[in-house]
Amino acid sequence: MSLPSGLMRQLERHVPMLTWAKEYNKDTLTSDAVAAVIVTIMLIPQSLAYALLAGLPAEMGLYASILPLVAYAIFGTSRALAVGPVAVVSLMTAASIGNLGLSTPAEIALAAGTLAFISGVILAIMGVLRLGFLANFLSHPVIAGFITASGVLIATSQLKHILGIQAGGDNLIELIHSLFEHQHATNPITLAIGLTTVAFLFWVRKGLKPLLLSFGLKPRLADILAKAGPVGAVVVTTLLVFLFDLENKGVKIVGDVPTGLPPLTMPSFSPSMWSQLFISALLISVIGFVESVSVASTLAAKKRQRIIPDQELVGLGASNIASAISGGYPVTGGFARSVVNFDAGAETPAAGAFTAIGIGLAALLLTPLLFFLPKATLAATIIVAVLSLVDFSILTKTWGYSKVDFTAVFATIFLTLGMGVEVGVSAGVILSIGLFLYKTSKPHVAEVGLVPTTQHFRNINRHEVETHPSVVTLRIDESLYFANASFLQDLVYDRVACDQPIRHVVLMCSAVNEIDMSALESLEAINTRLKDLGIKLHMSEVKGPVMDRLKRSHFLDEMTGKVFLSQYDAYVELQPKAI
Amino acid sequence: MSLPSGLMRQLERHVPMLTWAKEYNKDTLTSDAVAAVIVTIMLIPQSLAYALLAGLPAEMGLYASILPLVAYAIFGTSRALAVGPVAVVSLMTAASIGNLGLSTPAEIALAAGTLAFISGVILAIMGVLRLGFLANFLSHPVIAGFITASGVLIATSQLKHILGIQAGGDNLIELIHSLFEHQHATNPITLAIGLTTVAFLFWVRKGLKPLLLSFGLKPRLADILAKAGPVGAVVVTTLLVFLFDLENKGVKIVGDVPTGLPPLTMPSFSPSMWSQLFISALLISVIGFVESVSVASTLAAKKRQRIIPDQELVGLGASNIASAISGGYPVTGGFARSVVNFDAGAETPAAGAFTAIGIGLAALLLTPLLFFLPKATLAATIIVAVLSLVDFSILTKTWGYSKVDFTAVFATIFLTLGMGVEVGVSAGVILSIGLFLYKTSKPHVAEVGLVPTTQHFRNINRHEVETHPSVVTLRIDESLYFANASFLQDLVYDRVACDQPIRHVVLMCSAVNEIDMSALESLEAINTRLKDLGIKLHMSEVKGPVMDRLKRSHFLDEMTGKVFLSQYDAYVELQPKAI
Repeated sequence: MSLPSGLMRQLERHVPMLTWAKEYNKDTLTSDAVAAVIVTIMLIPQSLAYALLAGLPAEMGLYASILPLVAYAIFGTSRALAVGPVAVVSLMTAASIGNLGLSTPAEIALAAGTLAFISGVILAIMGVLRLGFLANFLSHPVIAGFITASGVLIATSQLKHILGIQAGGDNLIELIHSLFEHQHATNPITLAIGLTTVAFLFWVRKGLKPLLLSFGLKPRLADILAKAGPVGAVVVTTLLVFLFDLENKGVKIVGDVPTGLPPLTMPSFSPSMWSQLFISALLISVIGFVESVSVASTLAAKKRQRIIPDQELVGLGASNIASAISGGYPVTGGFARSVVNFDAGAETPAAGAFTAIGIGLAALLLTPLLFFLPKATLAATIIVAVLSLVDFSILTKTWGYSKVDFTAVFATIFLTLGMGVEVGVSAGVILSIGLFLYKTSKPHVAEVGLVPTTQHFRNINRHEVETHPSVVTLRIDESLYFANASFLQDLVYDRVACDQPIRHVVLMCSAVNEIDMSALESLEAINTRLKDLGIKLHMSEVKGPVMDRLKRSHFLDEMTGKVFLSQYDAYVELQPKAI
Repeated sequence: MSLPSGLMRQLERHVPMLTWAKEYNKDTLTSDAVAAVIVTIMLIPQSLAYALLAGLPAEMGLYASILPLVAYAIFGTSRALAVGPVAVVSLMTAASIGNLGLSTPAEIALAAGTLAFISGVILAIMGVLRLGFLANFLSHPVIAGFITASGVLIATSQLKHILGIQAGGDNLIELIHSLFEHQHATNPITLAIGLTTVAFLFWVRKGLKPLLLSFGLKPRLADILAKAGPVGAVVVTTLLVFLFDLENKGVKIVGDVPTGLPPLTMPSFSPSMWSQLFISALLISVIGFVESVSVASTLAAKKRQRIIPDQELVGLGASNIASAISGGYPVTGGFARSVVNFDAGAETPAAGAFTAIGIGLAALLLTPLLFFLPKATLAATIIVAVLSLVDFSILTKTWGYSKVDFTAVFATIFLTLGMGVEVGVSAGVILSIGLFLYKTSKPHVAEVGLVPTTQHFRNINRHEVETHPSVVTLRIDESLYFANASFLQDLVYDRVACDQPIRHVVLMCSAVNEIDMSALESLEAINTRLKDLGIKLHMSEVKGPVMDRLKRSHFLDEMTGKVFLSQYDAYVELQPKAI
């Protein structure tokens, strides 16, 4: 290479492919190719099923599993992440497009592509601006609650295909109501296919692997065969429909799936569509990114590798833009398929590119075979896949640990089920932040005293400590900022309003990480008020960064007392001297 | 009274009037009555002027100064607060109603009353639910910036009346553009009246009191007479217009003001109007409440009295509802008039009720005299009043102290001037909260060591301290919660990834006020990772409330190291033993 090394490093950072491509050899090729074959087999029914869940034609699921994988292979940093359509994002796509009230399939497909495009642009911009940290504002319990509630919604939404009826709705109440309204039209053959497939797939998950092992298969092969269960169900039920002409007995089938590689498509640039889709695209981007990064970092940790969240944003952004221009819809890194990819031995993102070739071949060659595939089979694969995501134990875990976390999770689950995915996840985020701010606005404050024989100070209500009646030491367990500035004032005034002969108030600032302008004004007000009462105000254990800032104001000149390096110094100096 | 004492206390809390009414006597009556006369004289021109600023007929200003004062006297807790139309809220009312695109005066009056009603309901509900703390989320610098920018906007908006032209706009750019566009139509007589009045009022503020004092008047009387300056200007300019028939020379006058007490009015209950006005009403409520509470608590502190913010919400809510049903518009506690009320000796809220009687008499008797009052005079009183609110020094103060505060103030001022009051204040609030969250998501972390001869630990980069290479102690200067949970993980992993023979990592938690569920999961991940690397994880100085919560989880059982009461204990126990 004749590029200067600085520029090359720059380029490698933004195009991670350049790093791993240099070390690519026959061994990694073999590993990647094997993983790709397995993931391809798993991804074909999943792609079709998730497109169905998103309310889109089946082929869009295949298209979303080709170019996006190549784009991620070039720009992504995870070596095991498998990108493509996933359950939660498909549900969110359905909810978002459902709001638009479109009628023709062409309009719906255009809206789905545009959604992917907007989402891709948002992700890429966030990546370039290094805004990956924004995803941190989704708390773990809120994500867990959201995924669980989404799983319930998704499974419920698929029941109509199992029953062979028309039904719909954006939340659990609407879905259940609609199912009851139409259940009289249940098609018994469809129901039989659906239920049998669900039962078979559950058995495949639990029972097939032990069975294969007892036949003497190697554990890894048994594992892989078990993952291919859905393909077996697809083949068998398709044959059944074909052989017994079940289509004419009311079993809904996938029908014509166009043969060929993805078409080149253009997203819409209509401002009205962008403004209608923007919030949905933002939510899809954030949820997709969080899901993807959590999978990618878990897998990376197992091999002592690291992912770079801001570059992941670029990778997912590129994937979604690729999806938008090749007839797909929003994609992200999926949990199940990434684990399969990892377990099957994928070494580099090239495995993803090879998977794309596999799906591309399927789109070219296999689509005519999908004509008689019953929708009930796809619905069954979705139901079995998402029920593994449902885990209400987050409610009991948070209940035991923290009521604040519990409140956020409960609201997320309740609102996702009751009002749909967009309201649910937005409420979860807003509530987590709101509750955090509420807590910091009413901080814990402890009156402290000296733990005997040490230089350590602790809460007078929890420990046996020494104090002097003329000195009150308050340890404020929070940064002082606008939201709690007036709380601090009230607190100090209340504490000094007593008969005790208080001469000194010490604010122990070991837990104060910040004093903003509003809090500074409150401190000035406290200082003035205490001065009127003949009480001196002191501070102790003020941290470096906080002290730096206080020195830039006039407060330290006006303060009646002193700033002590340690609380022990304050204690020794302020205690009444024995004569 | 035959009521049980518990019920009575309950009632007194919600109707503070019952408390002070018991002690009411001739002395307090006299003090209140004197204060009421002075405030009435000051309030008459102000009420008319602020109604003009809000784009409403002059009489609505008077109506908003009658019943609301009585309602506040019953439900409010401040003994000096004078409620009525104020400058900033009037500007916000104008902006809010301007958005609706109404044309007839009746529609505009109905919208103004509805705005007051919604605002009253919001305030009262916030009071009953004790949500007064929400106002704390407006930081002091943001409020200061908002008031300053509003003052500039208000003064600029009144220039059209001084010039005698038509002009308008919601932000500084529109206002200035519109003034330039119409300045050719300037009416010279109006301009003369306006400029002379402005000059006169400025002189009254600065020069009249010393002059009166030199005539031998008592300071308090001189002070009060100086406050009556606007009334003098009103009388003189009205006479000028009447005597010289200036109306027919193009001087705009107030014209017909209906005589009589306020009419009983009904707010609109149209859902579309409520949804259009709701956000504006919320902003008006919060800004009005913050302004009112800051005035009330400043005045209360001077007499060692206290106000109860949640009851203040109820008081202001009642005032606004009273305003809505008596032909008024949104009101709140005003700064200037409350100071005058206080200085004039008001002892109880009854002074407000007496002021209401004064304004009521004015509405009954004086309105015919206001026919020839020039609008330029009212505009001059507004300009002089609001320019005293303008103080850009908040920019330099925050610049020196904290860039975060500066950013919030600058954005507030810039956006208020450039995009109007609603955008400005919303941006200020969102930005303050956003910046606070951003800071907490990337907390300050110090590696600490022992300050020799003490048991005190400080930053190794700022102080001369002792450390052991096998023990790394990190003091985390922030609560651990979802927004910084992954930051903590990265930080610890980065720190231990070095050649140093690290055996122990101690997290010193003196500044950790909270460990939420997300952070707990991060700690578990850190513990597992360090275990793999053969490093023990310890914690020290964990606070009571945090420890209580950790004990409820399984983390302490799984943790490889110990929890030490003090960092010194950890230091002593973990240092490599000399053999």
